[in-house]
Amino acid sequence: MVEPATATQTAAPVMPQLKDELDIVIPTIRNLDFLEMWRPFFQPYHLIIVQDGDPSKTIKVPRGFDYELYNRNDINKILGPKASCISFKDSACRCFGYMVSKKKYIFTIDDDCFVAKDPSGKAVNALEQHIKNILSPSTPFFFNTLYDPFRDGADFVRGYPFSLREGVPTAVSHGLWLNIPDYDAPTQLVKPLERNNRFVDAVLTIPKGTLFPMCGMNLAFDRDLIGPAMYFGLMGEGQPIGRYDDMWAGWCIKVICDHLGLGVKTGLPYIYHSKASNPFVNLRKEYKGIFWQEEIIPFFQQVVLPKDCTTVQKCYIELAKQVKEKLSKVDPYFDKLADAMITWIKAWDELNPPTGGSSVPNGKAA
Amino acid sequence: MVEPATATQTAAPVMPQLKDELDIVIPTIRNLDFLEMWRPFFQPYHLIIVQDGDPSKTIKVPRGFDYELYNRNDINKILGPKASCISFKDSACRCFGYMVSKKKYIFTIDDDCFVAKDPSGKAVNALEQHIKNILSPSTPFFFNTLYDPFRDGADFVRGYPFSLREGVPTAVSHGLWLNIPDYDAPTQLVKPLERNNRFVDAVLTIPKGTLFPMCGMNLAFDRDLIGPAMYFGLMGEGQPIGRYDDMWAGWCIKVICDHLGLGVKTGLPYIYHSKASNPFVNLRKEYKGIFWQEEIIPFFQQVVLPKDCTTVQKCYIELAKQVKEKLSKVDPYFDKLADAMITWIKAWDELNPPTGGSSVPNGKAA
Repeated sequence: MVEPATATQTAAPVMPQLKDELDIVIPTIRNLDFLEMWRPFFQPYHLIIVQDGDPSKTIKVPRGFDYELYNRNDINKILGPKASCISFKDSACRCFGYMVSKKKYIFTIDDDCFVAKDPSGKAVNALEQHIKNILSPSTPFFFNTLYDPFRDGADFVRGYPFSLREGVPTAVSHGLWLNIPDYDAPTQLVKPLERNNRFVDAVLTIPKGTLFPMCGMNLAFDRDLIGPAMYFGLMGEGQPIGRYDDMWAGWCIKVICDHLGLGVKTGLPYIYHSKASNPFVNLRKEYKGIFWQEEIIPFFQQVVLPKDCTTVQKCYIELAKQVKEKLSKVDPYFDKLADAMITWIKAWDELNPPTGGSSVPNGKAA
Repeated sequence: MVEPATATQTAAPVMPQLKDELDIVIPTIRNLDFLEMWRPFFQPYHLIIVQDGDPSKTIKVPRGFDYELYNRNDINKILGPKASCISFKDSACRCFGYMVSKKKYIFTIDDDCFVAKDPSGKAVNALEQHIKNILSPSTPFFFNTLYDPFRDGADFVRGYPFSLREGVPTAVSHGLWLNIPDYDAPTQLVKPLERNNRFVDAVLTIPKGTLFPMCGMNLAFDRDLIGPAMYFGLMGEGQPIGRYDDMWAGWCIKVICDHLGLGVKTGLPYIYHSKASNPFVNLRKEYKGIFWQEEIIPFFQQVVLPKDCTTVQKCYIELAKQVKEKLSKVDPYFDKLADAMITWIKAWDELNPPTGGSSVPNGKAA
């Protein structure tokens, strides 16, 4: 059985890299141990906490952390009517933090995720591994059998085309979970005791044209490259669905990364996921998604973005248009979601105005 | 630094499974320790040894092994003029063994590959892991972030479409190498001391539409599902190229598996690769391939097989036609190779006649 690292084990040297270029976004903190556990790793960074529920409740943040906290009242004040695109009473609200950040990189994590140990017993510095993943290129056009060729002790194997070895910029780093795996409600119900004890020492690029289930529990990305597509949709109060916020974002970012020539990596780092959420509650939130994903995924598998979609914003607006056209017939929810996608982009651009002539368009294409 | 298992460490219990359904194909045995090292694992199985060089030289096989040995004279006698499709003085000749086998499964391995140890020090039963890989389905249509969902302690994660969880039959299992990694000559020259010490405890399906560099050193496959496409091309004496035999087979089998709805897995098992081949010799063999692969891979990435290609043979003949049409302009070698592909299929069908009304066509489509 795997166990999380203890507080002393986590007292590893802090990586100073990117201190001024990365924000940590956390959707509510209910667990007081959470920040204490991560203190050696997180304290150098700025935290953005987005409170998912009742704004009258207070979130306690231990001393020594540099943070800003947004509750529903703040979101309404900052976005006005456009606040409608931000979910309420659901951790999907975290994407508001992506929008208000002014940093290049985001790391987002849930408050039931603790520091994992590698097989040697050493605490895993998840943030450091995400940064390594993002700062090294991705290789989406051909599979490298020794996994990420940019890791120490690895390279491209025989038969890997030399023209593809430069790779492409990495936009997203998707980390995994020891202990409680990220299962859907039916699997949770069927395998209540299953734990993930397998530490797979690999990072790999998800190939172009392949979709994956992106989990928001332990995720990092480059805001400049893909931020405007990292919208977590409409979940929680007043919505017919939950637990598909990160999935929705994952489908969207993957087709846009594929279109713009950007990379998505998955694998290391692990966090220790401490607590299984209630499978009965999850089933209620998920059951429509379980049906709908059977139509949504083929939709995303066939999406083609036109050549003139040269920025993430343009891609995302085009995607919203196609969602409205093709998924509204699945459920009226998608009509509302497509509108919210447009609202999200408007709000993003308002809070993140173009920086003038020196700015570079998102993505690789131009 | 990783080390191979010693002979006593390899004395693990033998897996009786598939004893009568699997052949081990070895291209020449120059290393006398090789079979001794593998004895606990290989002795229950039938070996097919294909001698790659001078037929007057004798290959010594230790007592206790059940084997058949083919040299060039045997190949010429059995295939007649069609023997022209089998490489001489190159380990590519191993594919003759695939053709004469009468078993459902093939495991092929080089004679400089020894038993690897897992991180706990236990000898890795490579054959057993290959069989596990092949007997469990593949999932080429959507990426599972916890890797092979059919392994113990793993499953499909949240967001994996339920309609895709049945998977598809696995046709190929591609294993990896500790110690000497499978690098091309330029990488060998640049990194002469690099060793692969990373044991990645994962098996994964290579997604549909993604090509990979298939290495023939440690490879298993289902002859019934994909055998006729496992042709290792024209290499060695009289040919302008070497070390692309397995790559060629890898590109061909992948597009055919994608077309027929079959799976290709990579990852575990590891073998211990003991000896780096001479990088100068390798460079001479490879250098044309290094140019050519820049055109060959885009060719394979865009190949479309018509719907009426419902068997591996039909797919392979169509592929040969397209190779002739589109790659002959790269070099006249491909014209010759396309002809050899057709000869290979004719020879395959001669040695493996249809079994009559009860036979099932290769692949899933029908």
